[in-house]
Amino acid sequence: MSLARVQFFSISLDGFGTGEPQSLDAPFGHAGERLHEWMFTTRWWRERLGQPGGTGGIDDAFVRLHDTGIGAEIMGAGKFGPPGWPEDLEWKGWWGPNPPFHTPVFVLTHHPRPSIEMEGGTTFHFIDASPAEALETARAAADGQDVRIGGGATVIRDFLAAGLVDHLHIVVVPILLGRGVRLWDGLEGLEKDYEIETASSPSGVTHVTFTRAV
Amino acid sequence: MSLARVQFFSISLDGFGTGEPQSLDAPFGHAGERLHEWMFTTRWWRERLGQPGGTGGIDDAFVRLHDTGIGAEIMGAGKFGPPGWPEDLEWKGWWGPNPPFHTPVFVLTHHPRPSIEMEGGTTFHFIDASPAEALETARAAADGQDVRIGGGATVIRDFLAAGLVDHLHIVVVPILLGRGVRLWDGLEGLEKDYEIETASSPSGVTHVTFTRAV
Repeated sequence: MSLARVQFFSISLDGFGTGEPQSLDAPFGHAGERLHEWMFTTRWWRERLGQPGGTGGIDDAFVRLHDTGIGAEIMGAGKFGPPGWPEDLEWKGWWGPNPPFHTPVFVLTHHPRPSIEMEGGTTFHFIDASPAEALETARAAADGQDVRIGGGATVIRDFLAAGLVDHLHIVVVPILLGRGVRLWDGLEGLEKDYEIETASSPSGVTHVTFTRAV
Repeated sequence: MSLARVQFFSISLDGFGTGEPQSLDAPFGHAGERLHEWMFTTRWWRERLGQPGGTGGIDDAFVRLHDTGIGAEIMGAGKFGPPGWPEDLEWKGWWGPNPPFHTPVFVLTHHPRPSIEMEGGTTFHFIDASPAEALETARAAADGQDVRIGGGATVIRDFLAAGLVDHLHIVVVPILLGRGVRLWDGLEGLEKDYEIETASSPSGVTHVTFTRAV
């Protein structure tokens, strides 16, 4: 059974998945890298940079689920590039020639363009589709594996509202952003469909997992 | 040194300290008792009801801080009674003849009335004052002990925004209320003034403490 999964989407204690305003120089706006610093100290992250060391505890265990068993990703236009990227035909994402996905990636956009094949197995496809349609398309490309719903906050919220997420992993970072894009708006009663676990890390973040009740 | 403390104020995962609409029959609106169920299973709560049993773990340890070293409480009008209570001269709070405070309690209201002396050491005083003025008044009455900022969400937020809270204990309950009164609005950067710890309980809630950095 191919699941739709959200892995380590980080939010502030007041529920923002990104700050504002977002730009080429500040992809997360005034949040900067503060929502993701917990990740930079893990062994998983260091390995990706070719560096030794890093923690091997709860944060590392959770962050490794990003790659395990994933056959495709769906991301929003705001994750693929800064405001205005659809006008730049040379834009190929933030991640350089070898993006860290290594699967087909479906970018939700109202401005589709030809697919872009990158190094390392990542191919960006651009589709104008509803959450359900996008999931069907990504699932077909995932070859029996799971589909990662990669964010940002608006995309995850839309997939949750449509009842399409099987497994949700949120990382609550103890900062107050005050403004930006909220994850939880309009999701009253979401907990009824899930088993929820929370686990605090010595790093200060709290891992919250929603697993669809069977 | 007398501190201003918030003890076990419960919020939903999406940040609401109460649901809506609030009424005599539903003090927390559509939230019902869901924000406080974690507390009902503690030994502390059972003792208050004269019942045996209850858990003696992390939830019980935290909830007992409610009483320790407190000499006065400040609460908002919305905690003292349902909408419209200032028109009811017989209203003496939700808690019966022997309220669980056992200290002076200062109720913030634009409709002051004579103080009410209850059984067990609780006296309700009604004052129309700014957060700083209210804290000064309560501190004078607390006889060297700490002052509890008792809620609701709006009052706690006002005291936080004014920089008046020394110790903040929030309990995050894994439910999504979707609507109600938010605790965190307008508090961008609050974490800069505090040491923050998070601790998940097997009951499913997460205890978050803010201790003012010295």
